[in-house]
Amino acid sequence: MLDHLDGATRVYFVIGDPIAQVKAPARMTRGFAQRGVNAVVVPMRVPVPEFDAFMRGAAHAKNLDGMIITVPHKLAASRYAAAATGRVELTGAVNVLRRDATGQWFGETTDGLSFVAGIRAAGCEPRGMRALVVGAGGAGSAIALALIEAGVAELAIHSRTPGPRDRLLGLLRARHLTMPIVAGSADPAGFDLVVNATSAGMRPDDPLPVLADRLSSTTFVGDVITAPEVTPLLAAARARGCPTETGIGMVSAAIGLMLDFFVAGIAGRDGSLR
Amino acid sequence: MLDHLDGATRVYFVIGDPIAQVKAPARMTRGFAQRGVNAVVVPMRVPVPEFDAFMRGAAHAKNLDGMIITVPHKLAASRYAAAATGRVELTGAVNVLRRDATGQWFGETTDGLSFVAGIRAAGCEPRGMRALVVGAGGAGSAIALALIEAGVAELAIHSRTPGPRDRLLGLLRARHLTMPIVAGSADPAGFDLVVNATSAGMRPDDPLPVLADRLSSTTFVGDVITAPEVTPLLAAARARGCPTETGIGMVSAAIGLMLDFFVAGIAGRDGSLR
Repeated sequence: MLDHLDGATRVYFVIGDPIAQVKAPARMTRGFAQRGVNAVVVPMRVPVPEFDAFMRGAAHAKNLDGMIITVPHKLAASRYAAAATGRVELTGAVNVLRRDATGQWFGETTDGLSFVAGIRAAGCEPRGMRALVVGAGGAGSAIALALIEAGVAELAIHSRTPGPRDRLLGLLRARHLTMPIVAGSADPAGFDLVVNATSAGMRPDDPLPVLADRLSSTTFVGDVITAPEVTPLLAAARARGCPTETGIGMVSAAIGLMLDFFVAGIAGRDGSLR
Repeated sequence: MLDHLDGATRVYFVIGDPIAQVKAPARMTRGFAQRGVNAVVVPMRVPVPEFDAFMRGAAHAKNLDGMIITVPHKLAASRYAAAATGRVELTGAVNVLRRDATGQWFGETTDGLSFVAGIRAAGCEPRGMRALVVGAGGAGSAIALALIEAGVAELAIHSRTPGPRDRLLGLLRARHLTMPIVAGSADPAGFDLVVNATSAGMRPDDPLPVLADRLSSTTFVGDVITAPEVTPLLAAARARGCPTETGIGMVSAAIGLMLDFFVAGIAGRDGSLR
């Protein structure tokens, strides 16, 4: 995959803790090569208390062109973006940083975009749909915004904790004045698209994020969880005949979007993803 | 070469400025793979004024197991070695740093050792030889020490500037009380081994570091310069029938020695190279 590795190779870090599980080094290095870019994506395990010290030092490597930020650093990393997209301003998180023309970091979050790209690849076009997003944290915020950008007709947000939900509702409504953006519940009845953007489902005894027996067989159900790939929610949805998309599908879509973001930076093009 | 690249890959930086010319990323990554180590060697271009800031940050990446230091950072990097070999103490330079068991950097310089390994690979065994080293800077210091360790019978050091020469003579004599370590001249007559450890020969109009017409055809002549591979000194020596070794041969030997150093660290073995 890296027959071109040499002193002129451009470098991208993927920063997280833990890091051994990430797929980006191999998949993105191969993707860069396929796009004709001599670059390597290198895992960097950086603990939370040392994140700032690491970031201050890394900026001094002149052939470091970008960074992929993963758990648990996405919020902290947003402070290193000298400029960022509106998505970053709303979610407070970045998962990609690249050099701009002055050598400073330009930030973006692809998490919501990759969810939408993943469900589209699975045959679900969200435009015109009534969508229910469960979760108002980083993933929920990014997905809610991306669904609005993708043209859903109505967006409902459900969270067990009303504070984050109401804060997110307020942020979204302030930007999208004419669209129905409402507080949802655990009842998915009447929605065309239901998304779990919480951690519920990582452990076998987690409660289901929605009432699965209220799912219609035509409702598309997506989940951000990657392990297990088929969460109890997705298993229940499939049992009812629903089309589904796993977190793995979202990760696959993310690889392409992150490459687009970095290659656009190399080309000196406008920063935001479309 | 890097089919194993993933989130669990261990990382080694090669740090210099410029960096595009270095061969270590490809050759050492391949060497690690051949030794069964999942590691990648990544070029990092760091300018002199930013070296300290970069080094302070890099230490926080927990899967960064080592660094190769090249021009112009070898002296500055020695300050980051919490422990180092006697070679580093004498030369003041490191070209390799690896994590010790406590996470701190252990330093070594392989520059002199790789010169000796290179001439041995070319058929020159320095043990018992009378050797003349031209140059008392970083390369000259490292090579002089390595030749003493390799068992030369007598060592002469020649430098156009007597200050560095006398300082190096003093350091070497203090450690090797019974060995003849003397000030040399530009006259190579009577020596079995002559080494250019200065930059003379990089430009076509540089003066020759020794009086070539005083070379015996049995004298082995080595040069540290890699570009041009055949310096005017080596060309003159070959014209007289002398066996020679270029700087490229030294670089090739260095790859193996640096791999030995890092792999010994992985195995938790004693630090110094033999």
